[in-house]
Amino acid sequence: MDKNILSIINEHQHLELLILFEHMNAVDIAEALEHAEAAPSIAAFRLLEEGLAADVFSYLSPERQQLFVSEFTDTEVEEIMDDLPVDDFVDFIEDVPEEVGKRVLESVSAEKSEIADRILDYPEDSAGKIMTTEIVQLTAESMVKDALQIIRTSGVDKETIYTCYVVDDERKLIGVVTADTLLYSHLTEKIGNLMDTTVISAEAGDDQEELALKFSKYDLIAMPVVNRSGQLVGIVTIDDILRVMTEEDTEDFAKLVGVNPTDEPYMKTGVVTQTKNRIIWLLVLMLAATVAGAIIGAFEDALAVLPVLGAFIPMLMGAGGNAGAQSATVVIRGLALGEITKSDIFKIIFNEAGIALICGVILGTANFIRISIMYGNVENNLTLALVVSVSLCITLVVAKTIGGMLPVAAKIFNRDPAVMAAPLITTIVDCTALLVFFIIASAAFGI
Amino acid sequence: MDKNILSIINEHQHLELLILFEHMNAVDIAEALEHAEAAPSIAAFRLLEEGLAADVFSYLSPERQQLFVSEFTDTEVEEIMDDLPVDDFVDFIEDVPEEVGKRVLESVSAEKSEIADRILDYPEDSAGKIMTTEIVQLTAESMVKDALQIIRTSGVDKETIYTCYVVDDERKLIGVVTADTLLYSHLTEKIGNLMDTTVISAEAGDDQEELALKFSKYDLIAMPVVNRSGQLVGIVTIDDILRVMTEEDTEDFAKLVGVNPTDEPYMKTGVVTQTKNRIIWLLVLMLAATVAGAIIGAFEDALAVLPVLGAFIPMLMGAGGNAGAQSATVVIRGLALGEITKSDIFKIIFNEAGIALICGVILGTANFIRISIMYGNVENNLTLALVVSVSLCITLVVAKTIGGMLPVAAKIFNRDPAVMAAPLITTIVDCTALLVFFIIASAAFGI
Repeated sequence: MDKNILSIINEHQHLELLILFEHMNAVDIAEALEHAEAAPSIAAFRLLEEGLAADVFSYLSPERQQLFVSEFTDTEVEEIMDDLPVDDFVDFIEDVPEEVGKRVLESVSAEKSEIADRILDYPEDSAGKIMTTEIVQLTAESMVKDALQIIRTSGVDKETIYTCYVVDDERKLIGVVTADTLLYSHLTEKIGNLMDTTVISAEAGDDQEELALKFSKYDLIAMPVVNRSGQLVGIVTIDDILRVMTEEDTEDFAKLVGVNPTDEPYMKTGVVTQTKNRIIWLLVLMLAATVAGAIIGAFEDALAVLPVLGAFIPMLMGAGGNAGAQSATVVIRGLALGEITKSDIFKIIFNEAGIALICGVILGTANFIRISIMYGNVENNLTLALVVSVSLCITLVVAKTIGGMLPVAAKIFNRDPAVMAAPLITTIVDCTALLVFFIIASAAFGI
Repeated sequence: MDKNILSIINEHQHLELLILFEHMNAVDIAEALEHAEAAPSIAAFRLLEEGLAADVFSYLSPERQQLFVSEFTDTEVEEIMDDLPVDDFVDFIEDVPEEVGKRVLESVSAEKSEIADRILDYPEDSAGKIMTTEIVQLTAESMVKDALQIIRTSGVDKETIYTCYVVDDERKLIGVVTADTLLYSHLTEKIGNLMDTTVISAEAGDDQEELALKFSKYDLIAMPVVNRSGQLVGIVTIDDILRVMTEEDTEDFAKLVGVNPTDEPYMKTGVVTQTKNRIIWLLVLMLAATVAGAIIGAFEDALAVLPVLGAFIPMLMGAGGNAGAQSATVVIRGLALGEITKSDIFKIIFNEAGIALICGVILGTANFIRISIMYGNVENNLTLALVVSVSLCITLVVAKTIGGMLPVAAKIFNRDPAVMAAPLITTIVDCTALLVFFIIASAAFGI
C-alpha cells in the first residue's frame, strides 16, 4: 500500500485526490479506500464519478461496503446499487447483515431487486448463483446494424459485450455472435446468418466446479446460463471463474491436511478462528492414533523381548504415511481436473499397486542393506533386516492402494474426494504398518 | 468420448463427417481426432476449413500434432502454421523433437519464424514465453474509423481484439482502448481522447505466477507485455493464465506430498514414470526417519522399564505431523495467493504459536482425561497422563511454529515455499516429539 495516497485521503486533500484518481483504476482506488480511516474514505469515495463509484464499491471488503452504506443517503445507495452489476450486487446482499440488505433491496428498482431475489434462490456454488444477467440479447431476424444500436444504447457492463446471445421467440438460446463478427460484417446482414450455433452453455443448477472445467477445456471467456426449459437467464464470466478456481483449490489444499476451508485470507483470520478451523481434525486423528497405540501396547511383550524392534516404528509409519499421502493427493488432483473419472477406479488400484511394488522393492532393498550393516552386532541381523524390509514393502502396497482408491470411492458415493484427508489415510496406514510388522516379526523370531 | 463419431471417422464416412463438423467446436473435433485411428484421423483433419483446421490443430496433443505434420505436405504444413496464433505455434515448436521443429520453422514465413525465435529465447515460465504477438496496435492520432478499419482487415485471433493497444512513435505503450469504446464512440473521434492511460502491463521477463495474481486482482482478460524500454511486444490472454494457475496449483499439490511435479495427466503417465516421480522423497524421508528411530533406540532402557510409554508414540508423532502439515499448507497457500509476504514471518510465528498453544491445551486436556481413565489400573497413571499431555502440547507448538515458519523462510531465501514439503516438516517434528516425550518421561519417572 502506497503510504502517500493514504495520507492524502486521510488529510482530506480533495483537489490532489481528484488528480490522483484520474490515473488509478478501480481496484487500486478500492484498496486505498480500504486502508484509509473511515470518515475520510467516505469523503474520498464521494469524489468518484458515478460509473467508477459502483466499480470501486464492488472491490471493497464487505465490512467497508457496509460502513459506506450505513453513512450514505438513500439516494446515494440507490445510485450506486443501480450501477452495480447484478452479480456484484448479489454478492453484496449476501455478505451484509439482513437488515442492511433489506434497506438496500428496498432502495433499488423493483426489477433489480426481483432479479437479485431470483439469483439468491439458486443453490450455493451453482452457475445461477455466480451469473450476471446483463446480457446483449438479439434475435436471428435482426440485422447487424440493429445489434450495434442495441450495444451502443444498452451500456451494459463491459465484460459482457464481447459475446451477444441470440434467442428465439420463447427466449430459448439458439446461438452466439461475437463482437468481432459484428465489426467484420455488413450492416444489413441478418444475425441468423452470422451466429454460431455450437454454443456451450450451462444450466443454472450446474456446479461451479464443472463450469470451471468447461471454461478451461473450451478456452471460454463467458458462458451463457439457461434454465431447465433452455431459456437464457444469464451469463457467467471468466473473472468469476478465476475466483471459483482459486477458491476450489484453496479448499482442496485445506481439506488435504484436515483444515476447515475458509475464504478468509490467512493474515485477516484471528487465532481463535484458525484454531476452530483446525482443532476438529486434530482431535479426531488423535483419537484414531490411539488405535495404533493400542497395537503397540498389544505387542508390548514382543518389544520387551526384542526392544530393537521399536527403532523401526517411526520409519515404517512414516514411509506408509508419506506413500499414502502421495497417492491420495495425486488422485484427488486428477479428479479435480477431470483427468480421472469414477470408472477409472480399478485402473488406479492396479496402477498404485504397481507403483507401490516397485517403490517397496527399492526402499526395502535400501533398508535391508542399511540394517544388515548398521545392526551388524545384533543377533539374527539378516532376519531382522528381512522382517523390516518385507513389512515396509507390504505397508507401501497397502498405503498406495488405499490412498489412491479412497478418493475415487468418495467420488463414487458423491462425497468430496478431498475430504478423505491425507491424515485420515495416514492413520489407517499407520495401524496396518504396525500390525504387519509385529505379526511378521513375532513369527520370524518365534516370540 | 462419443463412440459414434469415432467410428464415423475410422470408417472414412466423409460426407457424414462434414455435416457433423458443422455443429462441433474446435475442442471437441480435436478430442475426436485424438482418439481416432491414425490414418483416418488425418483424412478427417483434411476435411476441415482452413481457419478451423489451425484451431483444431492447436488443441491436439503434441504426439498427434507430430504425427499429422509428418504426414503433411510442405504446403499443408505452411498453411496450418501460418494460421496458428504465435503462442500456439511456439508451444508446438517446443513440444516436438528438434528435427520436426526445424522443418516447420523452415516452412513458415520468415517473419513468423523470427517472432517464434524471439519468444523461445525468453526464460521458462516468463510472460514473454506465454504471450502472443497478434495485437491490434493504434496510434493516439488515429481516429475511431481507422481503428475499425484496422480491426476489420487484420483478422487477428479473436481473443485479442477486445482490447486495442495505443503506442507512440517509438512503439512505447501509452494506453488501451476497448472494443466497446470503439463501438460507442463517434467515428471521427481521436483514439488519444478515448484511450485509458491507466494500463496494467507486464514486463517480458516477469514470472507467470505473478502475472496470474495480477489477472485475478484486476479482473483482466488480457494484459499487454512490454520489453525493458517499455515497447509493446505482445499480450498475454486469460486462457493462458487459466492454464498457468492450474499448473502452478497442481505443482504445489505435488510438492506438498513430495512428488515431482509433472504436466502429464495421471491416467497418461506410466507406472515407471510415476514411480520415478515419487521414489526420491520416499527414500530421503525413510533415511530421515532413521533419526527418529535412533531416538527410540537411545531410550530403549526407558521403554524396557516402562513399556506402556511405547503406546503413545503413534499419537505424539501423528498429532505433531498433522499439526505441522496444517500450518505449512495454509501458509504455502497464503504465499501462493499473495496474501502472505516475506515480511509477515514474525506475525506468522506468533500466530502459529498462539494457535498451537490453544490446540495443545485442548488436545492435552482430552488426552489427560482419556489416559487417567483408560490407564486407571497403571501405577502413577496421573503422572503418565501429565507427561503425555505436556509432551503433546510442546510438540504442537514446535510443529506449528516450524510448519508456519519454514515456507516463509524458503521464500525469503528465494526458494519455492512448497518444496519444504509437509513430510519433511513431519520428520523434523517426529524427532522433536520423541525427544521431548522421552526426556520428560525419564525425568518424571526417574528412569
